[in-house]
Amino acid sequence: MKFALKVLPKPEVLDTQGRAVQSTLQSHGFDLSECHVGKYIVLEVNASNPAEGEKMATAMAEKGLYNPLIENYQLEKL
Amino acid sequence: MKFALKVLPKPEVLDTQGRAVQSTLQSHGFDLSECHVGKYIVLEVNASNPAEGEKMATAMAEKGLYNPLIENYQLEKL
Repeated sequence: MKFALKVLPKPEVLDTQGRAVQSTLQSHGFDLSECHVGKYIVLEVNASNPAEGEKMATAMAEKGLYNPLIENYQLEKL
Repeated sequence: MKFALKVLPKPEVLDTQGRAVQSTLQSHGFDLSECHVGKYIVLEVNASNPAEGEKMATAMAEKGLYNPLIENYQLEKL
């Protein structure tokens, strides 16, 4: 069972990487007003049902796949 | 108009970061059979319609937001 973890900097945290990508793209003529850069982690968990799988994936995320001080995450079943 | 770009290592490329995360999680007792680590990039593009927005986001991706030698990407409208 596959889950995707999308990790992004919290809105109130300065996203230096996102800013850098944004200004580089803008200097190449692209019209964008915002850019955020985070992590995308795909987890294949061995669970017997979707509810258990989600619980396991959440536990893995909470264990240390994101930094709760500066990041938010979203879990998606693939 | 927001688009998310999900960038992952190609399946035939050794995903060292994914392997490291997988073995660390396994050593903490988590039951998972695969893990891949990539980038998640959110782009807010100034487009007048979804088709134009997707074209712009694709152009940004192709410009250099992923490495075509070792990575694949997926574009998603948010």
